[in-house]
Amino acid sequence: MKKLNVGMIGGGFMGKAHSLAYAAMPMFFWPAPAIPHRHTVVDVKEELAKDAAARLGFEHYSTDWREVVNNPEIDVIDIVTPNNTHAEIAIAAAKAGKHIISEKPLALGAAEAKEMLEAVKAAGVKHAVAFNYRRTPAVALAKKYIQEGRIGEILSFRGTYLQDWSADPNSPLSWRFQKKIAGSGALGDIGTHVVDFARYLVGEISDVNALTRTWIPERPLQTGGIDKLGTVKNSGADVPKGTVDVDDEVITMVKFENGAIGTIEATRNAWGRNNFLTFEIHGTKGSLFFNYENRDELQVSFSDDPSDAKGFRTVYTGPATPYGEALWPIPALGIGYGETKIIETHDFFKAIVEEDTQFSPNFNDGYRIELIADAILESAEKGQWVNVNELEEK
Amino acid sequence: MKKLNVGMIGGGFMGKAHSLAYAAMPMFFWPAPAIPHRHTVVDVKEELAKDAAARLGFEHYSTDWREVVNNPEIDVIDIVTPNNTHAEIAIAAAKAGKHIISEKPLALGAAEAKEMLEAVKAAGVKHAVAFNYRRTPAVALAKKYIQEGRIGEILSFRGTYLQDWSADPNSPLSWRFQKKIAGSGALGDIGTHVVDFARYLVGEISDVNALTRTWIPERPLQTGGIDKLGTVKNSGADVPKGTVDVDDEVITMVKFENGAIGTIEATRNAWGRNNFLTFEIHGTKGSLFFNYENRDELQVSFSDDPSDAKGFRTVYTGPATPYGEALWPIPALGIGYGETKIIETHDFFKAIVEEDTQFSPNFNDGYRIELIADAILESAEKGQWVNVNELEEK
Amino acid sequence: MKKLNVGMIGGGFMGKAHSLAYAAMPMFFWPAPAIPHRHTVVDVKEELAKDAAARLGFEHYSTDWREVVNNPEIDVIDIVTPNNTHAEIAIAAAKAGKHIISEKPLALGAAEAKEMLEAVKAAGVKHAVAFNYRRTPAVALAKKYIQEGRIGEILSFRGTYLQDWSADPNSPLSWRFQKKIAGSGALGDIGTHVVDFARYLVGEISDVNALTRTWIPERPLQTGGIDKLGTVKNSGADVPKGTVDVDDEVITMVKFENGAIGTIEATRNAWGRNNFLTFEIHGTKGSLFFNYENRDELQVSFSDDPSDAKGFRTVYTGPATPYGEALWPIPALGIGYGETKIIETHDFFKAIVEEDTQFSPNFNDGYRIELIADAILESAEKGQWVNVNELEEK
Amino acid sequence: MKKLNVGMIGGGFMGKAHSLAYAAMPMFFWPAPAIPHRHTVVDVKEELAKDAAARLGFEHYSTDWREVVNNPEIDVIDIVTPNNTHAEIAIAAAKAGKHIISEKPLALGAAEAKEMLEAVKAAGVKHAVAFNYRRTPAVALAKKYIQEGRIGEILSFRGTYLQDWSADPNSPLSWRFQKKIAGSGALGDIGTHVVDFARYLVGEISDVNALTRTWIPERPLQTGGIDKLGTVKNSGADVPKGTVDVDDEVITMVKFENGAIGTIEATRNAWGRNNFLTFEIHGTKGSLFFNYENRDELQVSFSDDPSDAKGFRTVYTGPATPYGEALWPIPALGIGYGETKIIETHDFFKAIVEEDTQFSPNFNDGYRIELIADAILESAEKGQWVNVNELEEK
Repeated sequence: MKKLNVGMIGGGFMGKAHSLAYAAMPMFFWPAPAIPHRHTVVDVKEELAKDAAARLGFEHYSTDWREVVNNPEIDVIDIVTPNNTHAEIAIAAAKAGKHIISEKPLALGAAEAKEMLEAVKAAGVKHAVAFNYRRTPAVALAKKYIQEGRIGEILSFRGTYLQDWSADPNSPLSWRFQKKIAGSGALGDIGTHVVDFARYLVGEISDVNALTRTWIPERPLQTGGIDKLGTVKNSGADVPKGTVDVDDEVITMVKFENGAIGTIEATRNAWGRNNFLTFEIHGTKGSLFFNYENRDELQVSFSDDPSDAKGFRTVYTGPATPYGEALWPIPALGIGYGETKIIETHDFFKAIVEEDTQFSPNFNDGYRIELIADAILESAEKGQWVNVNELEEK
Repeated sequence: MKKLNVGMIGGGFMGKAHSLAYAAMPMFFWPAPAIPHRHTVVDVKEELAKDAAARLGFEHYSTDWREVVNNPEIDVIDIVTPNNTHAEIAIAAAKAGKHIISEKPLALGAAEAKEMLEAVKAAGVKHAVAFNYRRTPAVALAKKYIQEGRIGEILSFRGTYLQDWSADPNSPLSWRFQKKIAGSGALGDIGTHVVDFARYLVGEISDVNALTRTWIPERPLQTGGIDKLGTVKNSGADVPKGTVDVDDEVITMVKFENGAIGTIEATRNAWGRNNFLTFEIHGTKGSLFFNYENRDELQVSFSDDPSDAKGFRTVYTGPATPYGEALWPIPALGIGYGETKIIETHDFFKAIVEEDTQFSPNFNDGYRIELIADAILESAEKGQWVNVNELEEK
Repeated sequence: MKKLNVGMIGGGFMGKAHSLAYAAMPMFFWPAPAIPHRHTVVDVKEELAKDAAARLGFEHYSTDWREVVNNPEIDVIDIVTPNNTHAEIAIAAAKAGKHIISEKPLALGAAEAKEMLEAVKAAGVKHAVAFNYRRTPAVALAKKYIQEGRIGEILSFRGTYLQDWSADPNSPLSWRFQKKIAGSGALGDIGTHVVDFARYLVGEISDVNALTRTWIPERPLQTGGIDKLGTVKNSGADVPKGTVDVDDEVITMVKFENGAIGTIEATRNAWGRNNFLTFEIHGTKGSLFFNYENRDELQVSFSDDPSDAKGFRTVYTGPATPYGEALWPIPALGIGYGETKIIETHDFFKAIVEEDTQFSPNFNDGYRIELIADAILESAEKGQWVNVNELEEK
Repeated sequence: MKKLNVGMIGGGFMGKAHSLAYAAMPMFFWPAPAIPHRHTVVDVKEELAKDAAARLGFEHYSTDWREVVNNPEIDVIDIVTPNNTHAEIAIAAAKAGKHIISEKPLALGAAEAKEMLEAVKAAGVKHAVAFNYRRTPAVALAKKYIQEGRIGEILSFRGTYLQDWSADPNSPLSWRFQKKIAGSGALGDIGTHVVDFARYLVGEISDVNALTRTWIPERPLQTGGIDKLGTVKNSGADVPKGTVDVDDEVITMVKFENGAIGTIEATRNAWGRNNFLTFEIHGTKGSLFFNYENRDELQVSFSDDPSDAKGFRTVYTGPATPYGEALWPIPALGIGYGETKIIETHDFFKAIVEEDTQFSPNFNDGYRIELIADAILESAEKGQWVNVNELEEK
């Protein structure tokens, strides 16, 4: 069985998730398309890198991502660093002929994403953006229903991603609140997952019309380099504050090319919502509802159910639904975050070894999502509809 | 105890709901502010009117609403007819010095609503629009939390009203699909309830930016005069069809005068949703969620809960929450549609007998909601933000 | 249309619910089988009786229930008094030839219930016990599914009735905690509703094996005569206490004559549960779940659903389900406590005017439920299975 | 960092879950108490064993468990074979001085379990039984609340484990339906998880009183050796059938030594229930509810909440709750089956390296659970209460 050597750039929380997937993928999908070998992990400081290698099961470690990108032993570069570094690493990796999986969002904006896309196209390597949530089995089941026409033509989509980890004004000014590192706020961080759902399930988005708000304009400067989200708070009047220059919340109306309409909402200031990533889709023959917080379930309503037994049914994913044979033998035994990454890894490694198979979402999708995100920001600024294709042509 | 004679114009489903409230209000609120006496009910045909009187417990019946409006024995006119007749009846009733409660939406548009408002102001009578859902005890509890500052300043609002009774293309072309009778479609019929929630709970809406769609452009002509919603279907290829000239679905972004933002969505084409009237509100100190389908419950999350016991709590309304002393002795014993009407009747009759008490929502609110609805339609047509106050000045 | 004069003995909370039903039943069911006329209401003190008549819409009032029972104008006696008075009133009413509806539980035990049953049989009058929850439309829908074989043969039943109004040790020693008035505690008060569900939906119970507990052995004496459940608390060390001699909680295993098995649990000491009256039923072809707290819904799972779309569906009752034509035009518009009483009243009045129609649950059922309750208490005392029929023969 | 070599006996679905945990545990818990090294995996056939090693990441494979048990390089024996083999392997491993983790239930009955317990005690090794569900973070949070007195004294417990994979009469006669291999049916397979919850959260069970039923007395013989639960069906009239000699369903009442009471119910014949492992606990100061199907959540109700904001709150486990620092950075990011095994592995390896730390549940617990299971079966057979301690003394 073919072995593919992975060089992973970054060793934080996402590095953990990816490492778990590398270790576990063949346990779930067997025979595996290829065996991921955790070859080298990179972190900025040697101590961190060494520790990450031990912890995450990598054979080597390094503090120099360029060296790893150019190491001829490496087959796959996995980018799990903050958003502002994706482009440089990915472009270098493409030039070095490596297959690439990058964390999302792909870039700081469409211009940067386009360069990345062109680089992987020119290099002829396989590429992936890690919008992993679409690989939740229940989301894949939604896709299956739609493809099979079981809810008919889609009329409308409502997607949300609501969290509360930044609702506290004392949660620190991590890189996620800084435009130069993050690109945007709730929009890029979590809203793009909903955009990915919308494109995956409904179709291409043609126009957007948005509102953005920064509810907490300044936050305590973060001490220590590690991203702790909102769970560690700097408190006290002494902590100096810095300016938040990204959105805390975004809401947008969307038009799809196929005529459907919808709304997307993302905020990290919704007290009580933790990972409330949802969609509701209405079609001419049925409806769907999904909430990632109860991710083993998909809710579906069919128009042709008998009149005295009509209603949303709660389907637990399992052996009879997509990816189910590979996962656990009983529905509701338990899909966690790890499983979404395990499936993602399987599908990407399959695309690497099969010449004609493209992974999706790839850099095309990543670029398109950046374009939509740019359109959302422009729309919010100008207070008007923005056509995504027209923006692309600019 | 004072008795107030009611003349009710219309004897359909809403007439049943109002009659139940007249009969039951004093059983719940005692001593009652006044005893409603079901004096005369009006329907277009004598047979229907006679039947309505017997069924609904009215002493008299009539086929001539003008006669009833001008009957000196009548104290209160209750308008439960299709939307296009509200204005004429209400203006006549106001001129005759009657207190008026009108079903919603108040009128076919803001212009008509303004005339009605001026008429009741000129007459000095008490007036009400029957947006009854805000009198669901759980909604009143949400209002209480907000007023007491328990969820802080409001940042965002998301409201929906989703039904499926018109999702079937064979559901007939009732008056609700005809602009000249209904004014608008999902917007006026159900979306205005969400607008009422938004104004009641968050504050005045300043700007809107909307999309509307008519998913099913023509429907079978309705045979028989009674509004049967989607539950009775004309089938077969033979049934001639007529054009739907109102919206099946509306989504709008809203800005509130106090800085909050939000979305509102209404559709009658959402398979599997029956009476999915919901709101979610995020504040600086907490969040609220309500779904009328489980109307005994309000969900609330407080930011200051202990970190290991934080989350939405499901509060069942009962004796300890608004209106609870008057209703049932145990939470979840069961709030139905009737109870919302019983409370509405109580509050309106209280306003009638107390000189300085105004009922809310009244014709001011009804007018404002019509203005917002007009702004939503204009926004959808023009594809841009519409400022409600500027529209008013036109 | 025939009018039937009602004499209602008792004017508390249940009197309100029944009065609402008398007023509203014809509004919902039309033509009505008969028109209930609220003729006379009885309370122990003249002031209370007079007030009840005004509030509840009765033409007359009285402090002497015997006089009312023997009034030849009265057709129906409605007993809404504490449990220990049901037998005497009902037997007198039967002797006077009146049709009788009694609140539940029917009596203080099987012996008393048997006398009542014999009295109504001897008199040839119609009789009803007000286990109203089985007339929740969703419960009637469950019955329909079962009768139509849609969940196959029933294997098991699990029913609960959980409340928390007596969980506070300071909630007062109302009559509901006194054996001589209430007969039993949670068992008679709420557990019998579950027994009614079990018999209605599954079949006759043959054997029981139970545990009972009195968690709070003494409570503050109640001041004031009105039953306020747990919502009014006597506090302070000064309030003298009295002994609770009934069960706070009962759990029992049950065997049904048809081979099904199950459990029933009732407690008024379950913090956070308000009116958690539920059942879950497993059959050879499907399953059902109902929770009265969300009473518009029935959950049903069918074994023959496609393997990728299997799961509990949430059916909202409405026009397409039992009683739906008479109620509200859209599912989830809202079933409250009142509607269960309105349906009960309709069905009882229909039974009165139709010679061959028997209302169910009637005194036979009420007696059988008392027998089962006695068996449960005996089983708990002896720590062993008790056969209900053998107990009957004693 | 210390490395511990694992010999895993069995390579089926549970082997996958355990292997995932060995690979991932240090990624989550760092520094890890010890690094699990996947040394040797055993399966009955060489081909299967070889394949398991490649798939699950073991260095070696073997078809001879005795050899592995006696291999001096091995530190830990992990038993993931059918129930009837646990005892022999565990006793041999104990004699060889290995630490042991065994899948549940520990044995075919209390007698066998006692031998195993005596063996590990004599050997002085660490021992664990893999009732992994108690390591769901939400269950650990329930334990924390109880230990901190936040729901007061426990009054009652209701636990269920409902599945439907054997509800189809055509699902094959796997070893799980054969007493000589499985010991018992739903009771041992899934009911023991509930018994584990009950003992963990409430306390020791003193008495039981049970009913068992075998709903489907014979099933098609299974072709092929692999346990496929109900998902693969033998169909057609031709398939010969064999007798089921274990329970399909068990319900039992329980008494706890501390005075609490409860019920436990387990069935694999509940259409629509997949992995419905739940508990509800009522205490003097609050209540808890958990359903593993939504395993990120714990529901808790506190008696001292304000009267207008009382109710079950839904707490999502995360960084602020037990094990949260090691898992994912945001609540509801997703706990799956794997995480329960990762935590279990961590805690067991910690117990191995820390002399004074005992893992729980261990063979003492496993034995006690077998004793309770035996008592349940005896009670069901005799139709009476069985005292667990008296049974032990027999």
